[in-house]
Amino acid sequence: MQGRSHLGLTHFFESSLIRRFVNVARVELSIPSVDADTFRHAMAQLAAPLTVLTCYAPDGGLIGLTVNAVCSVSARPPLVAVCLNRTNYSHDFVVSAERVCLHVLEPGQQELAFRFAKPIDRFAGQNVRHGAVPELTDVRLRIICAPDGVRDGGDHTILLGRVVEVTSPEEGDAGGLVWHRRAPHPLSW
Amino acid sequence: MQGRSHLGLTHFFESSLIRRFVNVARVELSIPSVDADTFRHAMAQLAAPLTVLTCYAPDGGLIGLTVNAVCSVSARPPLVAVCLNRTNYSHDFVVSAERVCLHVLEPGQQELAFRFAKPIDRFAGQNVRHGAVPELTDVRLRIICAPDGVRDGGDHTILLGRVVEVTSPEEGDAGGLVWHRRAPHPLSW
Repeated sequence: MQGRSHLGLTHFFESSLIRRFVNVARVELSIPSVDADTFRHAMAQLAAPLTVLTCYAPDGGLIGLTVNAVCSVSARPPLVAVCLNRTNYSHDFVVSAERVCLHVLEPGQQELAFRFAKPIDRFAGQNVRHGAVPELTDVRLRIICAPDGVRDGGDHTILLGRVVEVTSPEEGDAGGLVWHRRAPHPLSW
Repeated sequence: MQGRSHLGLTHFFESSLIRRFVNVARVELSIPSVDADTFRHAMAQLAAPLTVLTCYAPDGGLIGLTVNAVCSVSARPPLVAVCLNRTNYSHDFVVSAERVCLHVLEPGQQELAFRFAKPIDRFAGQNVRHGAVPELTDVRLRIICAPDGVRDGGDHTILLGRVVEVTSPEEGDAGGLVWHRRAPHPLSW
């Protein structure tokens, strides 16, 4: 913790937290994690929003990938977290991009989710607006983020993005395509 | 980055990443974030799983709260991320707990989600099994985590949990209660 007052904890509490974490670390060595299959089976039951993340490569090339490990973090400042597999081809491009765009998919856009997970020219045939990021204009809710640091997360990197621009639907709301039990599900309302 | 090789980046790439982040930081100062209302409106359209997080307070008291900012992070080691509002009463108890249990709600458990967000005795009338954590046994998918550190996330804390035990349904799968557009939605399949 090293006196990081932004955690909003008193100094006393921070000290006790350090002690507790040290104690936990000491005890935990003997407590095994669940295996990867058990973990994946549990996570398959944890619903997640389907999104497509895009950015430019340093040479201006288009990077895009389907991401479902995304969540809201903070309103002040406005932050989202995106978890990226470190072995993914796109990983290094995304974590070093100056802007990324999170496209929040909605019912009927399942094919886009599958498309951006395939080893093909993912942008071929898509309507793309070029600006600070490549925007897929067929997706109505687009959240543009400036990187706000990365955090280590085991075999993934947790990328924090500070939201600098939001394009919302002109009518109604968007989103609502959910990944659950290894398949896309449209939410209805 | 300071040579954190666990990010899986080469030293060269780390150096260029530092430079880029420094450059970005320099430019970004003039680029404002979206305001909190715009952010919340966008996040309301980003679907999220409804869960109840429980743990013990140091005095053995029961802590429980509804959380929807949860996502899978890593399979090896098995990690999940949970974002906790720093102003929430439960915050300091959760980040200093030795174990937390994530209860993944399913269709029909909307009332549980609302209950664990209200200023009442949330555990009253619930079936609770007492062990390393207080487990709500009416929720079929329960993910027990050992804390694996906290990360600063603006007005929230990002708690990483290493999964040490999973209780799954005896039949079929669970989960599937989703928060979207400021209301719970059951997934059907």
